[in-house]
Parts: sequence; C-alpha cells; structure tokens
Amino acid sequence: MPHKLMRMRRAEADQGTPGRPIMIAIAGDSAAGKTTLSRGLIEALGPGRATTICVDDYHRFDRAERAGLPYTVLHPDCNYIEIMEQHLQLLAIGEPVLKPVYDHSTGRLTRPELVEPREFIIVEGLLPLHTKLSRACFDVTVYLNPPEEIRRRWKIVRDTSERGYTAEQVLAELARREPDSEAFIRPQRAFADIVVRFGPAPHRDDPPGTPLSAELMLRPTIRHPDLTRVLSDGDQHAIHLKLTRDTDGRPVDTLHVHGYSPREDSATVEKAIWAELGIDASVPDSLGRLADGERTEPLAITQLLLLYHLLDAAR
Amino acid sequence: MPHKLMRMRRAEADQGTPGRPIMIAIAGDSAAGKTTLSRGLIEALGPGRATTICVDDYHRFDRAERAGLPYTVLHPDCNYIEIMEQHLQLLAIGEPVLKPVYDHSTGRLTRPELVEPREFIIVEGLLPLHTKLSRACFDVTVYLNPPEEIRRRWKIVRDTSERGYTAEQVLAELARREPDSEAFIRPQRAFADIVVRFGPAPHRDDPPGTPLSAELMLRPTIRHPDLTRVLSDGDQHAIHLKLTRDTDGRPVDTLHVHGYSPREDSATVEKAIWAELGIDASVPDSLGRLADGERTEPLAITQLLLLYHLLDAAR
Repeated sequence: MPHKLMRMRRAEADQGTPGRPIMIAIAGDSAAGKTTLSRGLIEALGPGRATTICVDDYHRFDRAERAGLPYTVLHPDCNYIEIMEQHLQLLAIGEPVLKPVYDHSTGRLTRPELVEPREFIIVEGLLPLHTKLSRACFDVTVYLNPPEEIRRRWKIVRDTSERGYTAEQVLAELARREPDSEAFIRPQRAFADIVVRFGPAPHRDDPPGTPLSAELMLRPTIRHPDLTRVLSDGDQHAIHLKLTRDTDGRPVDTLHVHGYSPREDSATVEKAIWAELGIDASVPDSLGRLADGERTEPLAITQLLLLYHLLDAAR
Repeated sequence: MPHKLMRMRRAEADQGTPGRPIMIAIAGDSAAGKTTLSRGLIEALGPGRATTICVDDYHRFDRAERAGLPYTVLHPDCNYIEIMEQHLQLLAIGEPVLKPVYDHSTGRLTRPELVEPREFIIVEGLLPLHTKLSRACFDVTVYLNPPEEIRRRWKIVRDTSERGYTAEQVLAELARREPDSEAFIRPQRAFADIVVRFGPAPHRDDPPGTPLSAELMLRPTIRHPDLTRVLSDGDQHAIHLKLTRDTDGRPVDTLHVHGYSPREDSATVEKAIWAELGIDASVPDSLGRLADGERTEPLAITQLLLLYHLLDAAR
C-alpha cells in the first residue's frame, strides 16, 4: 500500500488544509458488476481511507409502495435525486451526511446512517451520473456496460440467491425495467471517463467457460496513464490498446484485456500504470478477486486503473 | 389571514427572488408546551405556508440502544447535532432536507422524510439553540420555561396517556434526566429572544384551577412591538408590562398576562401588536387553543406575539 502517499495527506491535514475527498462514480444497471469492482478498490485503499456509498439508498418509495406505481426504481422520479445531489455535494466538500438506507433484502426503507467523508469516496448505483450537479461532484466517472445477456445472467444468479426471487420473477422485472433502463440508465454511459465492458472477447470464438475479457474505453476527459510505450496499437496480443472512435465519432483509446491474458503481460501493464504515480510502493496484490476469491487479470487491470486515477487525483 | 402579505411574497417569488424561509426556534425541555405553542402558529399561518420540524428526530440512538448508555436523549452526544446544524442551514437557504424520524411511540428510528422549505419553518425540540451555528439559522428564538412542578405534571399526563409509561417510570426518568436538563437544556434560555413562562401568576394567591398566566420576557435582541402605549408599567392590571432586569442584570421587558384576563383587555393588546404589522387583515381567531379546544388569553397573546415576529421578519 502507498504509505508514503498516506503520510503526505496526513501532513496536509496537520497543516490545517481541509481534506477534500476524492470521489469516483461507478454507475451501471442492476447487477452490472458495480459491487465487485468497488470491493477491490476499498480493499486496496483500506477501509480507513475509503468508504463506499450506494445511491440506490435514495429510493423515494419502498417495495410495497412501488407496487402501485407506473415506474420502476430506475426512474429518477422514484428517487430523491435532489437529496442525492445535495449529499454528494456535501461529501465533496468534506461534510458528513445522514444517508437514507434501503434494505434490499426486505425492500424497506430503514433508519438512516451517518456517512463521514474519508480520503476516498466510492459512489456506486443506478443513477449517480444522472444530473449535471451530481456529475460535477466526481473526480472520476465510470460506467459499467456488460453485454445484456451477461448482466441478465448475473442478475438472475444474485436475485434468486440473495434477494429471494424466482428466475421468472427476475426476468419479468427485467422486461418491466427495460424502458427505464433505456431512458435513464444507459444515457449515463455518455458521461463516463471510463466505460468498462466485461464480456466475451469480441471477434473471437472462445469456447464456453472462457473467463470474461475487459474492454476499457478510455475517454480523453481525464488524463490516463500513457500505455503506448508498453502496448502496441493492434489486436494481436492478449492485452492491447486500440485507437478507435466512440459511437458519437469522438476519438477514444480502448484497452482490451483478454480473459486468458498471461500474468506476465498483465504485470507489465500494471507496472506501467503504477510507475506513472511515482510512488514508492508496490502494486496492491488484492486486486482482481471475484466473489469466489478467484483472480482475473481483466478485473485486476480495471481496478488498478481506477486506483491509479484515485491516487492521481489525490496528489 | 393576512392575504395581502401572502400576495406580496408570491409576487416576490414570481420575480425570481429565491424565497428565504423565516425560521423560529421553540426550545424547551420535554413536555414544556412546545407542541401546543407551535400548533396554533401553524393553524394561523396555514399549513401551506408553514411547516414544523422537531429536532428530537436527530436522536443518534434508538430507545433500546440508549438503555446501555450513560447519558440521556437530552445530551448532545446522544444526537446528530452536526447533522441538525447542517439541515437547519440548508432549510434556512431554502433547500430541502431528508430529515431523520424518531418514532416516540415505539422509541425506534424509522425511514427519513422529505422536508421542503415553506415560507415559515417552526423548529421545536430539546436542543435547537444548543450551538452557535444552529442559533444563527433563526429569525426568532423562543425558550419555554414553565415552573418545574408544572412541567412534571404535563409530562406525566402525556407520557402515561400517549407513550405507554407509568407515572413512576416518568418520575424516575425525570430524575435521571435532571443533570442533562441542567447542563444542556436550561442554558438555552440565555439565547432566546423571548422566554415564555406559563404558570401560576407570581405574588398572587389564586385558588387551584385558576388558568395559567403567561410571563413573556422580551429581550431587546429583536424589535418587539411597542406596547407602552396600551399598557401601563405596573402590575395592577390583568395584562401589564414591566421593565425589569434579567438574571444577568440586563434590561428586559416582561409582559404579564393573567389567566383570568378579560377578553377586552387581551383584544386591546392583540390589536396593538397586529397594528404594527400594518397589514390589511384581522387578528387570526384560531389562536389560544389548548389541546382540549378551550381558549386561553395568555396562550393567544403569546402565539400572536410570535406570529407578529414571523410576519415582521417576512416583510
């Protein structure tokens, strides 16, 4: 862990400079992988330095109340968006908030909890990038964009095992939510500095069971580490960088990390990312862990890149 | 109702001037009469123009959690004072807040509720004047200071009838709270523009059952209506004004309203207070009602004076 950096910020605090937390948004539809991604960041930073809040806690109605309403939890009107904005702004200037709490297991709103800002705040959820005011609170913005068939599979597994639904109920809910996903969730992709897509490698015919690849679209809205020195601009390697155009025609870099990337290749990329921070610490080894504890290189590199941006913003 | 004034403020809103709510604090110990006082104000202003919040909702612990703690709900450490300050500041600049909710009947913290600022905000509770930052949010501050034996009687009646306690439990709780009352509640008296004392008329030997008198200490920290023209500076009348010294030696006016004040006398005082507002509306007739619906002149004049200050601050 980058202890030197921690000391630096401590010294700053000692000098009476109020600490402005560094904030990252991880937006995406239900079961897009937000929690898996943010868990690795919290572990790498240490819970004493970082905290995660989920903005789905800002639901305006509980599950029973929503039953009679024409829209789903993905709809901004179904959330206290104005209060979410207010709390994000307060956290961004280092103030605590009393955050509402939505209990996913019961579908009920319960007593709120105090959130005190830490050095880093990870904000994940369905709509953190929905408004201009909320977007303005973040140093780094991420949108998780897995292929829909993969997200559906993840959602069925999670909601049947952890939230007490049947697979049929989850599929019906997904269908019911589709118009709101289209109208409110996916448009947030346009406001992300980094769009992350975990899925089968494109243009390849990998056998079933192949670990998922990551495709990281790096928009020039923030300064990404320069990977051109270690990665060639072609798609013949397991990890490669490709200069492409976004759907709106604007230039972007896309970092591809194949699910079977050799550890040596990913170690080279990790070192290149880490070296740009210029800090005297090794790459955290807690990255890349799935819920079952297995390590995947695509996840590790994705988390390391986000960690780079958090630490870079804190300098 | 003062419709002219409402139109005035509407016109202001139409011109795009953001409405800064007028805020009044009604502080006092448990069962000091805060709710009775504020209810009449809300009725007179109309619920569309005014809202009440209770800052006892900022309790940090629920009843079960408090059982193991060395302090009572009167102790600032037992409350999210920092969040209370934050919410009062947000309301004061016209922003909504998601306020925590403490359910007195169950002793549990429940889902928070949205409070949107209105033209007037009445803030009542145990500790609204505890900090400098919270005090700075108010246009008018009131402290309710009934004699302890009367407050104890009120608390026993309320807590046994509405909150499911026995009289013995209430008395034990009052004894347990006494050190915190002394340390944190009563010191707020010093920060009130108006100190209200409902109790037996001093220096008289009224028979039991005589309605309570009001003694309103008017500190020159805000501009009170000039009552010297309609009231003499002596104590021979049922309603009179008396120039005195506060416990710290500073000069104050004290308005005495005897429980048996004739309606003509109180009408004269009410008109004198109301006339200073210079608005084209009659004195609201909803003032002075106790919980049982009966009207008392001391309560009516107290509420009218507070109403005067709210409307005066809104001009």
